[in-house]
Amino acid sequence: MTVVGVLGAGQLGRMLALAGYPLGLRFEFFDENAEAPAGHLGGLTVAGWADRAALDAFSGAVDLVTYEFENVPVAAAERLATRVPVFPPPKALDVAQDRLKEKSLFRRLDIGTAPFATVDTRVDLDSAVAEIGLPSVLKTRTQGYDGKGQRVLRRGEDLDPAFAAIGGRPLILEGFVPFERELSIIAARSRTGETAYWPLIENVHRDGILRLSIAPASGADDALADEAAAIAARTLEALDYVGVLAIELFQHEGRLLANEMAPRVHNSGHWTIEGAKTSQFENHLRAILGLPLGATGTTGVSAMVNLIGETPDSAAVLAIDGAHLHLYGKPARPGRKLGHVTLVEPERATLESALARIASILHEPTLSR
Amino acid sequence: MTVVGVLGAGQLGRMLALAGYPLGLRFEFFDENAEAPAGHLGGLTVAGWADRAALDAFSGAVDLVTYEFENVPVAAAERLATRVPVFPPPKALDVAQDRLKEKSLFRRLDIGTAPFATVDTRVDLDSAVAEIGLPSVLKTRTQGYDGKGQRVLRRGEDLDPAFAAIGGRPLILEGFVPFERELSIIAARSRTGETAYWPLIENVHRDGILRLSIAPASGADDALADEAAAIAARTLEALDYVGVLAIELFQHEGRLLANEMAPRVHNSGHWTIEGAKTSQFENHLRAILGLPLGATGTTGVSAMVNLIGETPDSAAVLAIDGAHLHLYGKPARPGRKLGHVTLVEPERATLESALARIASILHEPTLSR
Repeated sequence: MTVVGVLGAGQLGRMLALAGYPLGLRFEFFDENAEAPAGHLGGLTVAGWADRAALDAFSGAVDLVTYEFENVPVAAAERLATRVPVFPPPKALDVAQDRLKEKSLFRRLDIGTAPFATVDTRVDLDSAVAEIGLPSVLKTRTQGYDGKGQRVLRRGEDLDPAFAAIGGRPLILEGFVPFERELSIIAARSRTGETAYWPLIENVHRDGILRLSIAPASGADDALADEAAAIAARTLEALDYVGVLAIELFQHEGRLLANEMAPRVHNSGHWTIEGAKTSQFENHLRAILGLPLGATGTTGVSAMVNLIGETPDSAAVLAIDGAHLHLYGKPARPGRKLGHVTLVEPERATLESALARIASILHEPTLSR
Repeated sequence: MTVVGVLGAGQLGRMLALAGYPLGLRFEFFDENAEAPAGHLGGLTVAGWADRAALDAFSGAVDLVTYEFENVPVAAAERLATRVPVFPPPKALDVAQDRLKEKSLFRRLDIGTAPFATVDTRVDLDSAVAEIGLPSVLKTRTQGYDGKGQRVLRRGEDLDPAFAAIGGRPLILEGFVPFERELSIIAARSRTGETAYWPLIENVHRDGILRLSIAPASGADDALADEAAAIAARTLEALDYVGVLAIELFQHEGRLLANEMAPRVHNSGHWTIEGAKTSQFENHLRAILGLPLGATGTTGVSAMVNLIGETPDSAAVLAIDGAHLHLYGKPARPGRKLGHVTLVEPERATLESALARIASILHEPTLSR
């Protein structure tokens, strides 16, 4: 029986395991946190990413390694790769962890991005602002996620406090794109080179955290879907990528700009569990095992709503016809992703009314922007 | 977090856990076999059913108990029920374990069955044959499943060897029904009394083991579906049942006869994982937790093919568009259920061609009767 080693044991690892047991796989997780929620679904090695002995022991217990956490140190992935296959390739991890490398890759592949410039010093910041203009966004090159490590610069007087807050580390200044909406494309590439693409997804963020995904994105014509797939295809190819890759996109004046990539299954793809013929989790596993990829067509129009900070009463959610509840088994904490609810409906109109019921359970006037 | 105790840790327990983690549940299994395949998906107590200390410790580690194995001794379920809620009620287990009690319940509820008579002695067998006629089937009252403990009697000379083979235990003689086809109905009843019914399922057995299920059963009109649901409804009510119940039926001259019931999730309901809006596994858990039951409508026409004795190459199965592979993580052994494949198609015609591809992978001319 093939044993898949997963770096990180959060909810993504948990959903990978739920998709992988039916394929006859077993799972071993590696995480710094003994309470990580995938721990109930497989073995769990609790150790730090720099613990070479633990990494070596882990590599001896698994047939191949993947990751569900994109901040795994590249050195850890590379060490494992000397002993067992590691997918996606550590190179993808390296690029995805650094906004400058990521945006530079997109630029090299002729994929549109917001304008950007490197900022290492306070002086660099002035030059970058002169080049890119305001408003713009100052971000740490590494370790940022869910809106952390970012400052919006609107006027000259914002520069000093922003640099004081996040400077001293390598930074990047990105032009502020007044995008119409945020989209994402999720793609898979197998060890055999086979590729698959789910339909374009529309995403709504709130306070920097994904709140709602709708798939297929409304009003996305074939040309837009093809443009997104081409962006993903070029990126997969350039990285000799294996596994599921997510690319966050901005739609602006009819064009797609790549914002960032995640070299793993992605929150905006959770709807695929019920809303697509094959989920992102199953296809990630098929891809890294070199198995044929499953069909990525939809079973209807889907909406995925994140449960953030607190979880509603399960009975209230499950009373909604067709609502699929996914709890991650994590203790509640403000701003924490604790679960999600997926709705799949044959048509957009019925999806809207089901979404309104979810909004009411979550005590929110609306889930849209 | 609610911890569900499951008696038995086979593939049914495994699929219960896969359905239950997204509901935020945890699982503890109890099985005599340390290699039981659900063991990777939760805690596993390895002990005999008569081990009272182990049962007591188990009850202390869980919030409620259910079972996935219908031959759990009733005494074990009753002992647990003095400490924690046990669903379905042990009474249902008691009835389902004894073909005489089972058929007597059906008769009391005005549900048609094959004619039957009790056989404890060789003399009883003569009287029973005189009453019911030949051909008929001599069966052990308890412990029979997948065609074990049964002898078909066609002529008078079959009686002695049949009694010699399985006599000495309480037996039942059942009239042989020249049924047109085998069907099953799967129903759920919640702690709140809410009920739900999946569409009628058509089943094909081979060598006493389920080979293929198709749902909805072809040509099943509303009247037949209503008759099956009424049979299930009366049984659920009579047993004050909580959980998923399966009833195997014979269709004979336009009528339905109840053959036997399983007080648990059932092999003929595995298609519901992808083929229904809510699976039998999820609704079993919702029922025993008193949560609202999920919708039981179909997502298409489904076929479930059991993988018996050996498993085909995963890549060959997964290359079939829309094929869902479910392996149980059990070592191969002749006659053993090792997994299943589910196909869901919008129409029967495309389902037939997908089934033909599965048959070819399994090196069988056809999967039908």
